[in-house]
Amino acid sequence: MGVWGDAVTQVLIPGCALVGIGFALFQWFLVSRVKVSEDANGYHDNLIDNEDQEEGVDQLDAVIKCSEIQNAIAVGATSFLFTEYKYLSIFMGAFGVIIFLFLGSVKGFSTESEPCTYNPGNLCKPALANAIFSTVAFLLGALTSVLSGFLGMKIATYANARTTLEARKGVGKAFIAAFRSGAVMGFLLAANGLLVLYVSINLFKIYYGDDWEGLYESITGYGLGGSSMALFGRVGGGIYTKAADVGADLVGKVEKNIPEDDPRNPAVIADNVGDNVGDIAGMGSDLFGSYAESSCAALFVASISSFGISHDFLAMSYPLIISSVGILVCLITTLFATDLSEIKLVSEIEPSLKRQLLISTVLMTAGIAMVSFFALPSEFTLYNFGTDKVVKNWHLFFCVAIGLWAGLVIGYTTEYYTSNAYSPVQDVADSCRTGAATNVIFGLALGYKSVIIPIFAIAIAIYVSFSLAAMYGIAMSALGMLSTIATGLAIDAYGPISDNAGGIAEMAGMSHKIRERTDALDAAGNTTAAIGKGFAIGSAALVSLALFGAFVSRAGISAVDVLTPKVFIGLIVGAMLPYWFSAMTMKSVGSAALKMVEEVRRQFNTIPGLMEGTAKPDYANCVKISTDASLREMIPPGALVMLTPLVAGTLFGVETLAGVLAGSLVSGVQVAISASNTGGAWDNAKKYIEAGASEHARTLGPKGSDAHKAAVIGDTIGDPLKDTSGPSLNILIKLMAVESLVFAPFFAAHGGLLFKLF
Amino acid sequence: MGVWGDAVTQVLIPGCALVGIGFALFQWFLVSRVKVSEDANGYHDNLIDNEDQEEGVDQLDAVIKCSEIQNAIAVGATSFLFTEYKYLSIFMGAFGVIIFLFLGSVKGFSTESEPCTYNPGNLCKPALANAIFSTVAFLLGALTSVLSGFLGMKIATYANARTTLEARKGVGKAFIAAFRSGAVMGFLLAANGLLVLYVSINLFKIYYGDDWEGLYESITGYGLGGSSMALFGRVGGGIYTKAADVGADLVGKVEKNIPEDDPRNPAVIADNVGDNVGDIAGMGSDLFGSYAESSCAALFVASISSFGISHDFLAMSYPLIISSVGILVCLITTLFATDLSEIKLVSEIEPSLKRQLLISTVLMTAGIAMVSFFALPSEFTLYNFGTDKVVKNWHLFFCVAIGLWAGLVIGYTTEYYTSNAYSPVQDVADSCRTGAATNVIFGLALGYKSVIIPIFAIAIAIYVSFSLAAMYGIAMSALGMLSTIATGLAIDAYGPISDNAGGIAEMAGMSHKIRERTDALDAAGNTTAAIGKGFAIGSAALVSLALFGAFVSRAGISAVDVLTPKVFIGLIVGAMLPYWFSAMTMKSVGSAALKMVEEVRRQFNTIPGLMEGTAKPDYANCVKISTDASLREMIPPGALVMLTPLVAGTLFGVETLAGVLAGSLVSGVQVAISASNTGGAWDNAKKYIEAGASEHARTLGPKGSDAHKAAVIGDTIGDPLKDTSGPSLNILIKLMAVESLVFAPFFAAHGGLLFKLF
Repeated sequence: MGVWGDAVTQVLIPGCALVGIGFALFQWFLVSRVKVSEDANGYHDNLIDNEDQEEGVDQLDAVIKCSEIQNAIAVGATSFLFTEYKYLSIFMGAFGVIIFLFLGSVKGFSTESEPCTYNPGNLCKPALANAIFSTVAFLLGALTSVLSGFLGMKIATYANARTTLEARKGVGKAFIAAFRSGAVMGFLLAANGLLVLYVSINLFKIYYGDDWEGLYESITGYGLGGSSMALFGRVGGGIYTKAADVGADLVGKVEKNIPEDDPRNPAVIADNVGDNVGDIAGMGSDLFGSYAESSCAALFVASISSFGISHDFLAMSYPLIISSVGILVCLITTLFATDLSEIKLVSEIEPSLKRQLLISTVLMTAGIAMVSFFALPSEFTLYNFGTDKVVKNWHLFFCVAIGLWAGLVIGYTTEYYTSNAYSPVQDVADSCRTGAATNVIFGLALGYKSVIIPIFAIAIAIYVSFSLAAMYGIAMSALGMLSTIATGLAIDAYGPISDNAGGIAEMAGMSHKIRERTDALDAAGNTTAAIGKGFAIGSAALVSLALFGAFVSRAGISAVDVLTPKVFIGLIVGAMLPYWFSAMTMKSVGSAALKMVEEVRRQFNTIPGLMEGTAKPDYANCVKISTDASLREMIPPGALVMLTPLVAGTLFGVETLAGVLAGSLVSGVQVAISASNTGGAWDNAKKYIEAGASEHARTLGPKGSDAHKAAVIGDTIGDPLKDTSGPSLNILIKLMAVESLVFAPFFAAHGGLLFKLF
Repeated sequence: MGVWGDAVTQVLIPGCALVGIGFALFQWFLVSRVKVSEDANGYHDNLIDNEDQEEGVDQLDAVIKCSEIQNAIAVGATSFLFTEYKYLSIFMGAFGVIIFLFLGSVKGFSTESEPCTYNPGNLCKPALANAIFSTVAFLLGALTSVLSGFLGMKIATYANARTTLEARKGVGKAFIAAFRSGAVMGFLLAANGLLVLYVSINLFKIYYGDDWEGLYESITGYGLGGSSMALFGRVGGGIYTKAADVGADLVGKVEKNIPEDDPRNPAVIADNVGDNVGDIAGMGSDLFGSYAESSCAALFVASISSFGISHDFLAMSYPLIISSVGILVCLITTLFATDLSEIKLVSEIEPSLKRQLLISTVLMTAGIAMVSFFALPSEFTLYNFGTDKVVKNWHLFFCVAIGLWAGLVIGYTTEYYTSNAYSPVQDVADSCRTGAATNVIFGLALGYKSVIIPIFAIAIAIYVSFSLAAMYGIAMSALGMLSTIATGLAIDAYGPISDNAGGIAEMAGMSHKIRERTDALDAAGNTTAAIGKGFAIGSAALVSLALFGAFVSRAGISAVDVLTPKVFIGLIVGAMLPYWFSAMTMKSVGSAALKMVEEVRRQFNTIPGLMEGTAKPDYANCVKISTDASLREMIPPGALVMLTPLVAGTLFGVETLAGVLAGSLVSGVQVAISASNTGGAWDNAKKYIEAGASEHARTLGPKGSDAHKAAVIGDTIGDPLKDTSGPSLNILIKLMAVESLVFAPFFAAHGGLLFKLF
């Protein structure tokens, strides 16, 4: 038993969650003080310069326009998400029924108690209870995921115009507005995920009592619910946003030579809506899913280890306490960006965001040490594929800490490869000199290369935590990487908000100066988005491995030997799945973009005065094309991911399924990292040429030069890579793992039909 | 004991090899009847049309020009290969010393005989003998590989101008010239590889006597030698050809708007030389390597099974007999293309090549059945990771046959995804309507999608042969896929020869009609090149797995359990290696192409009259740039592949190395297939628009239209993917496996230093 008592747990966890929510609301309040309405004219006093007036842009008119555009984006995003959630609720219902039927059938829907799986001396609740509670947990996870995405979108569409308006006062104010809004999302999600999980465990406990094995087995449904919604959110949102973005760019920037986000472009509202439903809502659901899954994986393994068997609730709650302390650490970290320092120059933005990562990591390391020494017994045993492994509390400190630091390494590596402050992106920009082809070749090479360090970081984290504390170590390492999720999400959400702010500035016809400021925010945002994806992928790799280990434990396999044909074919087919999935999503974006291009061309050709700015385009039609395409096209890739474990497990059995999970994990991580970094690098290579901040950059520019055109082509290709395929892949690998875990009792009982037949 | 006696073996194998060589020489003789010299004016009688005269092109002048150009290409290719081989001989020497030292040190260079590893009752030759003979086998393999590549290049540069001249008589004659020349290469290589291996075994036997375990262990050095030369050949040749190709296209086609292969382009000779040193010499070495390795893997496993233990030389030679019969089958198959049917229309080219695959597969199935029933005992036991597996002769028939048919499936799938006769490439061409970005997005998606069916085919082949006959089954399945290698190489080599023929036609200023014919040959050649790569990759996957199994057997590991940290980190790092490797090769091509672009631009700017055709460009300088770049840049990727097994095995031990091999195998296959198909599809999408053979194609063209420009960009990006990175990857996976196998005794004795220290 650790130093703290159970009571501490019962106060600390909900307490920290509530503090997180309170902090998020307070940040929201601060952001809301920027008024976006016609009677908001008190800001004149605060203006640092009044350049806008000099350029002849009417201030009040700009505010009204901003308000209108913000409204249009918010309405579009809300309506899309509602439509998406309507479809998803059907899926949730249907899949809930599948979970219930599959798990219920394990013991023929019997209501009798039965001997526990890992502790056969005791009696455990019937398999039917597991079926019911898993289904409930699944639905809870799905709802929390949806809520996370929806709240994120609401905040982002609330903050975008405010960031634009703040940009008039200087880059520092705009940065704080965007960053605070990101923090609202980060803290709400982290606290919310923790709270729902905590409450669910306590409610489930009322029924399960001392049967912790059953309790934590059914709670894994929470992770499945979270991730399956995240999958559809990412894929649907990703297709939506990139169809609009690619379509808008292809006609607007390439054919008509009008700037990005120009209000004359009919796809511009769809493009900005997309940022919110894809990058914000999708990312929110995704990281919530990772968080939920790593918690569930850790809890499940703990429940069949000495913590669970000796009913040590404090030690059992170790994963939740780590997350709770993480919220406090992130709270302090946020103050460094918003209150303890102020950004004055464009060049300070990226260092400030990078500092956030470093501060949160250093503080959290201390937090982990504290929790590990106070919440854990000094020595205990962990379940390790049928044997018990003796572990000390400082072993677990190392597991969590190495995950956390591996996350930092991944974050910094991603920054190096995607920020235009360093040579890799500058080399890519330079290759635009000889056209789009060399730009693409260099960009792809950059993405491939950027995989090396993150993979070594992940491998080291896996080796250390696996050696020290078996599968529990891996799960805790993943949770370590995600312990500073609030900060991670804040700097990640900051990106699309800045992107939107830039779009609004352009559409509202605000001055060059403001557009330059929002562009600078946005360039840093591309990098932070890539960092966020790096975290998401790195944590997904660890989470999947932990879930994989939990699945293998639950399915009763003692080894996954590559040298058996069943496992090897699983491995090679599993390694193929990320390619199949990417083929679907890339093609979907491509086809939807082609439709968008035709519609945008049609409008330019048929609406008189559109190009001259005297007539308004039909934004709604473009929104409809993106909506229809994303809802229709998200089904096949979603089905591929959701059905693969079911088919593999039922027909080929648990060994082949284990191979599939391992194969998709080791192959998917590489595809995901390279896709998202390649895309980020192309985007910033383009921005590097546009900004022309160095001697070298100016030789490539200005906007409209041949090199810039080549850079735009790279940027467009990167869009589906970095915002649709890449980030969906980490959901693919973890979702298949958690689904396998949830269905493990069924596969263990009835799986492998095909091999049984022959 | 099989029905045949040992004597049959001793006659059949060298007999078939000599028949193959004789057939190749006969084909060469037929090709040589097309005269390429000033006094060759007897062809006037044969001319089907005399359009050339009508267009005002002087016939004799054209022949002289062809002869000159051919000579320039041949001189360039020969000089490059000699330079390359000079460097490689240093490497061969150095690596030979490493092999000797590492393997000799296993028992401290003792000259005493010792108990056999698998049959400890008997005495085997000392480890020092293994060190010496492995080194000798390595050098023999390397020399044979070099010879294969060099002969292929000689034939191709002999045939290219002859194909051009034959094109004047019609597409059918040109096709036969190109195809016969391909057959020369195919048969020479297949027969040569078989013969050298057969002779080596018989020579080694003089020393080893009854110690077959030692004999076949040291013979695996032959595979290592073959593949390591193939790696450098592929990478060096790939960088050479694509630097020249990309550089030539970027300035010539994109900037100056002159046709491909225009003699005014200074890089045009380097481009055509590249086809011969990269696609021909590289591919020849590569497939020879696959063939050598799968034979060695099968022989090694057989030597520790009942064949070896009971000294059944006939059954032992089963892999070699299969290859011998393969040569006869391919001989008959070739006649179908060259003598039993005649091509009259452009549209018949691809079906005719496809038919070659089908005919050889059907005939070979009968051949396999015959060999399996006559050469094998009806029942025997095979080594299966420490246990014995009882196997019947018809089991082995299925193993070999399923590999053969899986090859056909891969070939046909590749054809479907890369030929412009089907919708996938046409969709990619259609996406050029909206520019280069959509073209790239659709092309990447196509490549990803094209992975699905080949992987299922490989997985089924693995499952069946693994289940029926363990690792020996896998090796024989690989050999089955390669049993028709002579035909495979013939249709593969046909591609670059046609490509060169087109280049020569353009440079010699021959008429449009002739250029159209060679273009049609070339378009089919892109598809067959992709098919050849598909075979190379598919067989590499099977070969690597077989070698992997042999390595695991030799290293004394009983299971490669993914759920141990040592193995898992190997797996994930191994899966990363193809990306690291691709990053290096892509970047190399990109940088070398940039240099080429600068040189070509410089020549256009500084040589007066070059654009007008009144002055000659300085071809030699471009050849030098490609040569220097490829020789310098092939070292880092080569070192990565050659050092990884040594470092992983020595520092981390055999389990981690096993993980690395499995990871790089399952991940590398996907990257290789998608890269080579994406590239092939882009190339043919471009050709589809240029040819304008359908209503749809004409709406996208003609040459110089925006859609065509977009297609050219895709084609350029695809160049390094399909001809440098993609095809080198299959060497990466099999080379690491064979190297691990050769060094297995050392790793088993001294490996894992790092883990031993901690």
